[in-house]
Amino acid sequence: MNKVFLFYRRPVGKPALGDFKLSIEEIPSPDDGEILLKTLFVSVDPYLRGRMNDSESYVPPFELDKPMQSGIISKVIDSNHSGFKIGDFVSGNLEWKEYQVSTGKGLQLINTDEIYLSAYLGILGMTGLSAYLGLTEIGVPKAGETLVVSGAAGAVGSVAGQIGKIMGCRVVGITGSDQKIDLLKSKFHFDEAINYKTTVDLIRAIKTACPNGVDIYFDNVGGKISDAVLNNINKHARIPLCGAISLYNATSQVLGPYIQPILVSKSALIQGFIVSDFSEKFPEAKKQLFSWLKESRHLP
Amino acid sequence: MNKVFLFYRRPVGKPALGDFKLSIEEIPSPDDGEILLKTLFVSVDPYLRGRMNDSESYVPPFELDKPMQSGIISKVIDSNHSGFKIGDFVSGNLEWKEYQVSTGKGLQLINTDEIYLSAYLGILGMTGLSAYLGLTEIGVPKAGETLVVSGAAGAVGSVAGQIGKIMGCRVVGITGSDQKIDLLKSKFHFDEAINYKTTVDLIRAIKTACPNGVDIYFDNVGGKISDAVLNNINKHARIPLCGAISLYNATSQVLGPYIQPILVSKSALIQGFIVSDFSEKFPEAKKQLFSWLKESRHLP
Repeated sequence: MNKVFLFYRRPVGKPALGDFKLSIEEIPSPDDGEILLKTLFVSVDPYLRGRMNDSESYVPPFELDKPMQSGIISKVIDSNHSGFKIGDFVSGNLEWKEYQVSTGKGLQLINTDEIYLSAYLGILGMTGLSAYLGLTEIGVPKAGETLVVSGAAGAVGSVAGQIGKIMGCRVVGITGSDQKIDLLKSKFHFDEAINYKTTVDLIRAIKTACPNGVDIYFDNVGGKISDAVLNNINKHARIPLCGAISLYNATSQVLGPYIQPILVSKSALIQGFIVSDFSEKFPEAKKQLFSWLKESRHLP
Repeated sequence: MNKVFLFYRRPVGKPALGDFKLSIEEIPSPDDGEILLKTLFVSVDPYLRGRMNDSESYVPPFELDKPMQSGIISKVIDSNHSGFKIGDFVSGNLEWKEYQVSTGKGLQLINTDEIYLSAYLGILGMTGLSAYLGLTEIGVPKAGETLVVSGAAGAVGSVAGQIGKIMGCRVVGITGSDQKIDLLKSKFHFDEAINYKTTVDLIRAIKTACPNGVDIYFDNVGGKISDAVLNNINKHARIPLCGAISLYNATSQVLGPYIQPILVSKSALIQGFIVSDFSEKFPEAKKQLFSWLKESRHLP
């Protein structure tokens, strides 16, 4: 039998289990020109929360009673398609089904000799590309500068911080547990990490962790954490804005201090982005990430 | 006798007459290597409000009991300096004095045959350069795009809008009186203008005036007006942030909706700037502005 995860109800605030439904269906058979896929890895990303709302964003909303979708790694277990053979591994935007058929459209074949499979949903996938391209195209880090990353232990944040280290920056992460702080410092080699949940004066904590001020702020969260970082930015700071997860579950408009006066006085730049804004740069970015990944196996 | 305007007291909220003091002094005599200047035009700019606070910004704060300073056009009325002769006109950052001596440092000689004098404080001065460089370097307007300008009837805004028209944009101004609306439409050739003080639903008024959405928002004001414009921006919108005058007189922190979610979903860019960020581009910018000014005498 085939497990299928349906989107059942648009969440109000934080998504709950009851907003989804598990459906047991027949395993489909591939027609001519189709392949049968078995799901191995599913990417669960913050941007999916936006797709659960019935409002236009950079991706269309999910439809009710249809399967959830996201980046998935699958194995080809049956094939009537000349481009794919049984045993191949593919990545693509697929449905949350244990088994599904596909025409192969939009799927990439994965060379499993080179690297572990899940990397193609992580560092070599959308999250790694978001970190690399947001940081290099908008943040433009220079050796010796200070980079602050919010959502630092997340899939994008942890990679952004590690790339900052490779590029010679002092890197400070903001995260929500002491366990994640340990992870950032010991495994991902961040210089400092701040637990925003247990820190009373976040502005001061950032100032202490960034004695030369903040040159680049890779922002995944928005809200109060970002307000505190903005209080510490240097002249000509750059802020790649990858997400605003702290605000996505809000059920009413969240207010904060206007940021325009700081942006003016610091000649600072904020740029929102989605990874596809930089699709022309994907090949070179993947090549760079792949080479870093091969060099230092400690990356996740 | 010599009238001197002193900065007497740091304003709380909106500056009042009592925050300044008129002092009557002797007319100074120029020493060797100095010139005596008579003030003709004084530039009074929004950024001066920032300098009245005792806090670091992009320019140092004014000192109490010292003369106010800003961009000034003066006539040389006595000279012991080989680089300046009596009758020359100069522009520079000078003190608010009817007469003052100068070593000539930082002063530019003005060729009065070419254009009327006050243009060197306006279109060919800091305000014109701010409009041109903020719009072209950050806004990067393309023909057919829609440009919204706040503070549209101001020294910077009125020029930004006119340059937008020259570059083929649909230009919509936001301003605070019907008299200014007339000015924007009849004299400065804006396509539409909105009076934010009399408009009940500003988001809707902007939507109506910008049927194709907002591609570039030249922002002089920040606050609620900017919130309404942000609600109408297109994907990949660019926002040159020149000032935030609506927030400068605030005596406590002003709150508004967080803008990060809109910036992410629209892949939009906001960049604060001060004209000196682009000082390398001054010569070519002045040349372009001068040529436009000579071509069409209707500019202010």
